[in-house]
Amino acid sequence: MEPTRETSGNEASQVSEALATRRWEDVRALLSQRHPSDIADIIIELPADDEGIVFRLLSRNAAAEVFAYLPYDHQEGLIESLTREELSSILDTIPDDDRTRLFEELPAEVTRRLLRSLSPDDLKQARKLLGYPPNVAGRFMTPDYVAIKPGMSAREALDHVRLHGQGKETLDVVYVLGEAGTLLDDVRIGSLVLSDPDTKVAEIQDPALVSIPAMATEDEIVHIFEKYDRSVLPVTDDAGVMLGIITVDDVLDIAEREATEDIQKIGGMEALDAPYDEVGFLSMTRKRGGWLAALFLGEMLTATAMGHYEMEIEKAVVLALFVPLIISSGGNSGGQASSLIIRALALKELNLGDWWRVFRREVTTGITLGSFLGAIGFLRIVLWQKLHLADYGAHYMLVGFTVWVSLLGVVSFGTISGSMLPFLLRLLGFDPATSSAPFVATLVDVTGLVIYFTVASVILRGTLL
Amino acid sequence: MEPTRETSGNEASQVSEALATRRWEDVRALLSQRHPSDIADIIIELPADDEGIVFRLLSRNAAAEVFAYLPYDHQEGLIESLTREELSSILDTIPDDDRTRLFEELPAEVTRRLLRSLSPDDLKQARKLLGYPPNVAGRFMTPDYVAIKPGMSAREALDHVRLHGQGKETLDVVYVLGEAGTLLDDVRIGSLVLSDPDTKVAEIQDPALVSIPAMATEDEIVHIFEKYDRSVLPVTDDAGVMLGIITVDDVLDIAEREATEDIQKIGGMEALDAPYDEVGFLSMTRKRGGWLAALFLGEMLTATAMGHYEMEIEKAVVLALFVPLIISSGGNSGGQASSLIIRALALKELNLGDWWRVFRREVTTGITLGSFLGAIGFLRIVLWQKLHLADYGAHYMLVGFTVWVSLLGVVSFGTISGSMLPFLLRLLGFDPATSSAPFVATLVDVTGLVIYFTVASVILRGTLL
Repeated sequence: MEPTRETSGNEASQVSEALATRRWEDVRALLSQRHPSDIADIIIELPADDEGIVFRLLSRNAAAEVFAYLPYDHQEGLIESLTREELSSILDTIPDDDRTRLFEELPAEVTRRLLRSLSPDDLKQARKLLGYPPNVAGRFMTPDYVAIKPGMSAREALDHVRLHGQGKETLDVVYVLGEAGTLLDDVRIGSLVLSDPDTKVAEIQDPALVSIPAMATEDEIVHIFEKYDRSVLPVTDDAGVMLGIITVDDVLDIAEREATEDIQKIGGMEALDAPYDEVGFLSMTRKRGGWLAALFLGEMLTATAMGHYEMEIEKAVVLALFVPLIISSGGNSGGQASSLIIRALALKELNLGDWWRVFRREVTTGITLGSFLGAIGFLRIVLWQKLHLADYGAHYMLVGFTVWVSLLGVVSFGTISGSMLPFLLRLLGFDPATSSAPFVATLVDVTGLVIYFTVASVILRGTLL
Repeated sequence: MEPTRETSGNEASQVSEALATRRWEDVRALLSQRHPSDIADIIIELPADDEGIVFRLLSRNAAAEVFAYLPYDHQEGLIESLTREELSSILDTIPDDDRTRLFEELPAEVTRRLLRSLSPDDLKQARKLLGYPPNVAGRFMTPDYVAIKPGMSAREALDHVRLHGQGKETLDVVYVLGEAGTLLDDVRIGSLVLSDPDTKVAEIQDPALVSIPAMATEDEIVHIFEKYDRSVLPVTDDAGVMLGIITVDDVLDIAEREATEDIQKIGGMEALDAPYDEVGFLSMTRKRGGWLAALFLGEMLTATAMGHYEMEIEKAVVLALFVPLIISSGGNSGGQASSLIIRALALKELNLGDWWRVFRREVTTGITLGSFLGAIGFLRIVLWQKLHLADYGAHYMLVGFTVWVSLLGVVSFGTISGSMLPFLLRLLGFDPATSSAPFVATLVDVTGLVIYFTVASVILRGTLL
């Protein structure tokens, strides 16, 4: 079998041609050696009417696998076009956890239609998985694992796997269950193969047992998998009873989705929950416009603040020139600090209890950065004046000092509030990522104006003001 | 064996006590049933002198595993304190890929000392892995896999695994190699167990073979694992010869690190390459201060731009009041668009070729969002005037229109440049994440001022200006 590479539009057009001339066998041949993921890519490229035809040409197993790889809107389209029998045959074959998430994503009407096509056993299973709140371990697990008894020998265990392992999602690890389904240990199938056939399962030395509580959050699931470097882990309830397994391919998806949500929130918008291209114009505009409008309402306070200092600006227009420079520096340092802390909290590099240590560190960092930027600003003003690139008046040195001291204050305030806001949000039970860079910037913009004009009124009293 | 939970400082103090009273057996007992990752957590809590003692009390295998879980500075400390024989014994036992990355992180002097303690075979292996450029698949692979021949039966293959599988990193999948080591297929060990013992390996129906080219980048590795949902994948060279395997636990680490780097860059700083707490004050200040200074230099252009409009501000101070509101709205919409596109590019939801489609979409989005924010701004000005909350003069309606039209222009410009910059950077071979929110904001701040004062000079000519 040739290694599968990324598919090109070329294959889709070959399939299209074969379909147009009703050469079904050619279509089958074109798809037979392909990975389900690649077949899904080809199907997406086809006209909607052809999708159903190609799908019916696939074997039952292949159809189920390809189905799992299609984007939700294509799955929905197929569900509408397939008969109840065809649907039921596909649904019985796709893994439980994929099916559960499919149900969650689809409109209620389509979900009802789907649930009706499940066999009673599968329906019970799907409902059970659905009983957990969204985004906890219970939602990602599949009950497709092989359980063995502690008294079995390695040979008996392997025979048991042979008998019960068909169609399970993974056989890499099997689980030793005691009375009432309590999880006692897990054993890699590789270890069973390597062991003397007469060794008792309980005596096989494998890495220590790690299990995930059914109510563990997505963050916790990712953290446990990262910490213990496993490819599959068991999920247990409070009593230690085994409920299912979570495989690492789902965890990789979770980790990527979590990071995407955080990046979108840090970027100052609601998380999209879907790839860029799959979000409609209205929904996209709402998710971006909502936050922009909220930030805009916050920023309107800058107009109010500026209004307070209208007299000062009238007296010394030179002050207005540095307003964008000063408030943006506060916003930049604040956004930087908040992104850094949000990510460190998400990766559990930092915990709520670390806030005081972070606070002390960020105070020092803020003062250092602020003095440094202030010095550049001061030099810029003096240099431009000396080089006759600009005219800041007779008191340009005092203006320069005003900018320096203001930057020290604004950058320190930005750094400290940017680093503390994620902790505060976590403490209050909100997602720290909500303290997005623009949110911090808005906060710092208003405060920055107050700091700047206060510093100016002290330093420039009797000269410009 | 009890399920392992997160360790507490409590265990560290028990170990400390046992060490102080030289009860070595108690220390061994305290650690014996723990996961290496938890033992590493305990060791970190101990005084530096005790670390080496606890380490020597561990079995050779346990020591190597615990070593791999320690942060680099603790590894370095241990390397300094262990004898050459102890070192060599540990290094021979830790997985090749972990060892390679250890070498990369350590100072050159320590690396040299480490390489000297390797056996000649291991040295050759480490050097071979090190021959690949950083961050490509060749650097993450381990040669610890089991290879079988296509002519073997399932029984022969399992016997072969029994004979050659001891100490391999994973036995979940074995690899069918042809002449000269060409990779022909991969077979799950579970499938070997399930098959009739006389079935030829070549006839076992497993999912299609997927392989990773040795020069694949981190993005590509993560993408392939996500696409095909595997726990381990083979790495091949251009000729299809098998070089090693990459396990998904490493891919999860890569994905998390990539997302962290992107978040830090989007937040407007250099990527840290280490957890928050492990970065020294100087290095942290440099990585944050460098970007802040660069952004500050860019923002200085706003002072120049404002200088150009000093006359206009003097004539109509009311214009200055809305400067922060207008430039921050441009920055927010730009930062939002750039974060969104950076992440979509990183996840390969979008490619370079999609720029035109994105452009058209973002133009519409920008105009919609700009008109919307502009309308709020206009209403705010008219309302405040009518409610006597502020006095924007006789021409407040014209001022309101100026703000509206400016916001339409600034937000559209912000959205378009924020979404196109990541594409441009990718085209030029740079990391799209460099087009951080603050970088876009700086660009938009300067342009925003020009747009605002140009619009004002058109609308307010003959009245205020």
